[in-house]
Amino acid sequence: MKEELNIGIIGTQFMGKAHSNAYRQVPRFFNIPINLHLHTACGRNKAALDQFAQKFGWDRAETDWEKIMEDETINIVDIAAPNDLHMPIAKAAAKAGKHILCEKPIALNLIEAKEMYQSAQKAGVIHMMVFNYRFVPAIALAKQLIEEGKIGKIHHFNGVYYQDWLVDPNFPITWRHDAKTSGSGAHGDMNAHIVDLARFLVGEFISVNGLQKTFVTERPLAPGEGKGAVTTDDATTFQAEFENGALGSFIATRFANGRKNFLRLEIFGSKGSLVFNLERMNELQYFSLEEDPKCQGFRTVLVTESRQPYIDAWWPPGHIIGWEHTFVHLVKTLVEGIAGNKQVRPDFYDGLKCQQVLDAVMESARERKWTDIELDLKL
Amino acid sequence: MKEELNIGIIGTQFMGKAHSNAYRQVPRFFNIPINLHLHTACGRNKAALDQFAQKFGWDRAETDWEKIMEDETINIVDIAAPNDLHMPIAKAAAKAGKHILCEKPIALNLIEAKEMYQSAQKAGVIHMMVFNYRFVPAIALAKQLIEEGKIGKIHHFNGVYYQDWLVDPNFPITWRHDAKTSGSGAHGDMNAHIVDLARFLVGEFISVNGLQKTFVTERPLAPGEGKGAVTTDDATTFQAEFENGALGSFIATRFANGRKNFLRLEIFGSKGSLVFNLERMNELQYFSLEEDPKCQGFRTVLVTESRQPYIDAWWPPGHIIGWEHTFVHLVKTLVEGIAGNKQVRPDFYDGLKCQQVLDAVMESARERKWTDIELDLKL
Amino acid sequence: MKEELNIGIIGTQFMGKAHSNAYRQVPRFFNIPINLHLHTACGRNKAALDQFAQKFGWDRAETDWEKIMEDETINIVDIAAPNDLHMPIAKAAAKAGKHILCEKPIALNLIEAKEMYQSAQKAGVIHMMVFNYRFVPAIALAKQLIEEGKIGKIHHFNGVYYQDWLVDPNFPITWRHDAKTSGSGAHGDMNAHIVDLARFLVGEFISVNGLQKTFVTERPLAPGEGKGAVTTDDATTFQAEFENGALGSFIATRFANGRKNFLRLEIFGSKGSLVFNLERMNELQYFSLEEDPKCQGFRTVLVTESRQPYIDAWWPPGHIIGWEHTFVHLVKTLVEGIAGNKQVRPDFYDGLKCQQVLDAVMESARERKWTDIELDLKL
Amino acid sequence: MKEELNIGIIGTQFMGKAHSNAYRQVPRFFNIPINLHLHTACGRNKAALDQFAQKFGWDRAETDWEKIMEDETINIVDIAAPNDLHMPIAKAAAKAGKHILCEKPIALNLIEAKEMYQSAQKAGVIHMMVFNYRFVPAIALAKQLIEEGKIGKIHHFNGVYYQDWLVDPNFPITWRHDAKTSGSGAHGDMNAHIVDLARFLVGEFISVNGLQKTFVTERPLAPGEGKGAVTTDDATTFQAEFENGALGSFIATRFANGRKNFLRLEIFGSKGSLVFNLERMNELQYFSLEEDPKCQGFRTVLVTESRQPYIDAWWPPGHIIGWEHTFVHLVKTLVEGIAGNKQVRPDFYDGLKCQQVLDAVMESARERKWTDIELDLKL
Repeated sequence: MKEELNIGIIGTQFMGKAHSNAYRQVPRFFNIPINLHLHTACGRNKAALDQFAQKFGWDRAETDWEKIMEDETINIVDIAAPNDLHMPIAKAAAKAGKHILCEKPIALNLIEAKEMYQSAQKAGVIHMMVFNYRFVPAIALAKQLIEEGKIGKIHHFNGVYYQDWLVDPNFPITWRHDAKTSGSGAHGDMNAHIVDLARFLVGEFISVNGLQKTFVTERPLAPGEGKGAVTTDDATTFQAEFENGALGSFIATRFANGRKNFLRLEIFGSKGSLVFNLERMNELQYFSLEEDPKCQGFRTVLVTESRQPYIDAWWPPGHIIGWEHTFVHLVKTLVEGIAGNKQVRPDFYDGLKCQQVLDAVMESARERKWTDIELDLKL
Repeated sequence: MKEELNIGIIGTQFMGKAHSNAYRQVPRFFNIPINLHLHTACGRNKAALDQFAQKFGWDRAETDWEKIMEDETINIVDIAAPNDLHMPIAKAAAKAGKHILCEKPIALNLIEAKEMYQSAQKAGVIHMMVFNYRFVPAIALAKQLIEEGKIGKIHHFNGVYYQDWLVDPNFPITWRHDAKTSGSGAHGDMNAHIVDLARFLVGEFISVNGLQKTFVTERPLAPGEGKGAVTTDDATTFQAEFENGALGSFIATRFANGRKNFLRLEIFGSKGSLVFNLERMNELQYFSLEEDPKCQGFRTVLVTESRQPYIDAWWPPGHIIGWEHTFVHLVKTLVEGIAGNKQVRPDFYDGLKCQQVLDAVMESARERKWTDIELDLKL
Repeated sequence: MKEELNIGIIGTQFMGKAHSNAYRQVPRFFNIPINLHLHTACGRNKAALDQFAQKFGWDRAETDWEKIMEDETINIVDIAAPNDLHMPIAKAAAKAGKHILCEKPIALNLIEAKEMYQSAQKAGVIHMMVFNYRFVPAIALAKQLIEEGKIGKIHHFNGVYYQDWLVDPNFPITWRHDAKTSGSGAHGDMNAHIVDLARFLVGEFISVNGLQKTFVTERPLAPGEGKGAVTTDDATTFQAEFENGALGSFIATRFANGRKNFLRLEIFGSKGSLVFNLERMNELQYFSLEEDPKCQGFRTVLVTESRQPYIDAWWPPGHIIGWEHTFVHLVKTLVEGIAGNKQVRPDFYDGLKCQQVLDAVMESARERKWTDIELDLKL
Repeated sequence: MKEELNIGIIGTQFMGKAHSNAYRQVPRFFNIPINLHLHTACGRNKAALDQFAQKFGWDRAETDWEKIMEDETINIVDIAAPNDLHMPIAKAAAKAGKHILCEKPIALNLIEAKEMYQSAQKAGVIHMMVFNYRFVPAIALAKQLIEEGKIGKIHHFNGVYYQDWLVDPNFPITWRHDAKTSGSGAHGDMNAHIVDLARFLVGEFISVNGLQKTFVTERPLAPGEGKGAVTTDDATTFQAEFENGALGSFIATRFANGRKNFLRLEIFGSKGSLVFNLERMNELQYFSLEEDPKCQGFRTVLVTESRQPYIDAWWPPGHIIGWEHTFVHLVKTLVEGIAGNKQVRPDFYDGLKCQQVLDAVMESARERKWTDIELDLKL
């Protein structure tokens, strides 16, 4: 009989739900070497926690995350809590010898990120970041095409992440609007994803220059309690230079009316180009200079073929998958890493390299200058 | 504690997998009044069956479907077997007083379909057809817009269902190529879906005129065993007249190179229009004559908002769902029907009305004439 | 100095304008061997005629079309008049030894069409049909790909032509609503185009089965004069069999709300597929089975490259052309034919073969049966 | 009889051709109060000039542009020559009391631009810039929607202009690669357009921060003559702040493989959004928050309706126009201005305000800092 891994999750909101679903789905669709047991769920609100645990099949419910560290039977700690908790939880988990899966951004800042990376490395545990968009089949295919040289030398990486849920000035304040709990707003939440994808697909950044804006500076607190100050950005744009000579342009905003979860990448290379949009995440646009010149054009590749990454586990061609499936692919990767005792990617190093870029953008925006990225990071 | 329903499924292939997933997912995302227990899975190939049962968490595995009928603890029979088995299984299940969920098309022909409907009605069980595309949120939204009068009087319903997996003449023969086991080919498999959607969105057919074609008339049997005759259609097109005066145009083909699961509906009415494509199933195209004339146009509605059908159970706006989710919505509907002892739609009547159209198209193609649909069906 | 051809045009409405523009533009963008002189314009309404002639630079204005035949200096007769005038004008022009350009459909019916073809052939003049969509660069490229074998054996030709200008029941009656002047409605006006494109791209029809509908049977006459009967179709759909084994599906309607000039072709072959839409006429969608299987998909070819048909004469890549340009390409072809004394295509034979299909569809709709196309047409 | 304006054009290449066509077409499709006479064409290469003049119907050909100034019968000077000639020609034309139409960018730099503006103003002539994209019907409609308040307060203006003709390192050197003749590369040629559209649709810039890159620093001279240095940018990106609080992101590149003339605007406001792409220039994407919440989405408005700007002059709905038509609309505007003795927009002030932004971007890129735009420009 297969070995079983016990998971303890901290966080029961949006990401808690997405991760729980992934743990449940991965053994149904993939052959994984180890069984997963939804051991303990942890959240601050007891009533919500119990409902969550019951709904997704977590055996136990716990309001104090430190208890998770004390429980020796738990093998994996899943950090799906607000950003300010990432570092303390991760360090405690590493110290307790547990493997760690952590939501993005890795931490509130680079200093915290370094601590997390160092403690996980020192503990010798497997650590992984939830940059789940690396696990979209279309993105994995893009990576493959780039590695095969189909795109050639990359000249441009233009990434945007558009949402619109903050356009309404009466949308109430949350922990995401408070720099103390979240570090930043659209930037850390959304640019984190496209920065990671840029590193994944193009390479390291060398310099950035950003601009941050809070369009609505006060938002309603709980009904009847007036308004509170918004201390995070509604939108952050930046330009970048990559180590390989490519130019980067990045936009993250929660003020793009009509766009719901529109993460678009445009990658232009010397031999071909790629375009991707998360709202149509089963598709990859691919242009190749190698085709017959009289009928070149961007192809819409519907990434649902068995020969394409991850997708064979699911349904026949043309039967699309959803956003949640990316977590299933990610968990599969994590579990294989743990089973084979082999560090997987994206790991905490990827998390801190992303954080480094995020921090540099914020510094550059504050000081209205270009900020260099230290390539030879002291760790 | 909640009551629990025991399910017995017959069929472990593509649909067996999709249904199993739905049973597992529905309680995680919806509040349903009854628990579901994956009691027994039934298939002919013992090894494949055991693997299937283990993977999706079915308690027992059984190779003889009649055993399911004998087991009094089983409440729901799920028919995901080849078409020629639908009728015998359904009748046995009805006789045994079990609720029935049946894959489409309902049967090999209208005569069988009538028997199934009658026996289910007589037994007083809940019966439901797996016309799962009614449960695509975008289709459910289309239905809502039509019912609100936003589209006005419908003039045209143009439906196509394009796939390409048979273009290769070396694709081997399956049960789907044999009229004895499947009744028809692209027609019963794919037109069944668009005929049901036409009935759902427009209304009843009164007359049809079809054309059927088998482009590749022989296909390889098992390696080394030569070729076998294909006795089902590769493509079926037909024209139709609806009771309400609308015109219909239908195309189902497995020879549409480059189209994987491309089910497109175009509905043109006196006040507006709707366009849908299953390969982009999270989107609905909607045109309204009521907008400011200088900026009218087809809107791409991304159907992932909490105010849209079914979708609130899943993720925030813009986080798309996949093909498999339609089954979850369908199972939710079935379970609510059983809990409330209330027949749900689409039921066996919808199955037989669809079969009636399918049969009429085949007759019209054979006799190269228009064939009328008996509106006042004797049952 | 170049020879000059004198043109006499009959018709000053929509098509008169489009043709006039083409005569003016062709020498500016193409090197043609002969100069064109806008000699005489002919129309029934003197005031409108004079304004038209002045605006587009026609030297003379004439209300009696027979005068054009009597003028020996006129070399080309351009028939842009209502359909019932095509035959008498064309026969007179042929008799007078003039080259003829004729709008589609060629005539009110096949009998007239034969007469026109025979008289033009007998006179030895160059005759050409205004099937201008053959001259869309994207369509010419599609033809080229088919001829190169890139699409393989064609299995399906699905053509639709959607407009919406008759959805409003108060849209007034015109000559197009009167079978006596126009022969048919959407059918002869719109199906004529897609039937011609089907013949151009796929080959000859062998059998058709049609359905015709007039949704609004009475429309307003001139203000205050009440209503008149509509005697032509608002929509005509038909199915077809081609000589080469392909299946055809055709829809022409003026009741497709939101579609303005939406002529879509979908061609599925054994090696590839093509999709075209006139509302995005600078684009051709092309799928090829020959590409790397892991990144196949429909390519959007922006047909504005110098290596693509006709387009080099205009602007650099990406600078799109408009609908009117198709007439310029057509006139260029006509002029080259006249200069080289070589019959060009599409000619009156193409016009009558199209008419034969149109007539057969109408017969099949009337008699609710399949109607065969006589392949070995007696002429 | 109408008055006639004599035009003298300087430049016979791409823009010379586009402008000539516009002069010829405008009286055919619009009612303009003055006739236009293609009086004199001027170019450096006598043979090419003669061919150009003959082809487009210019009465005279002249190799010395100063002769145009001396000819008192010439009323309008059209500057379609390389950028370094704009200033001397414009000043001479102003001095000679001629109306002036000038290609973009207005000049090599802001100093020249100011001189041009001052001399034209002083001379009291009508002056106009060829920012022809303001005259795309879809852009004019966008302007209208913004002015009606349909978009609300604008938060983001994201503009890109992608071409790919320089990806090939063997593409030979032209005047556009030499900073002395062209001022800049992609920046002045392409960003000039989107900067103007940003000013037109959003308002004035207050600060910019740019990045410029030359990917291929040497290109072939004439065959056999080796290579020459490229002194202009292949790509320029920049971020911007607008006076009204909006954020801007701009990318111009000739290295976007597969994009031919892809100018995309994304405008996000508090009440709605607009998206436009020049490769599909007959379409405007429009999102409105005011629609029924359950079916909101981006509408594709096909801007070919008589109630939409400029388009009524051409063809019925759905019959698209091409890139060249924008110049016809622009010339119509110019002629009406001259006839009414009323300055039209975009004028030299718009030209210099655009140049001011372009220069500031170049300065910011050079000095790697934000550069402010002087709002209260001394003139």
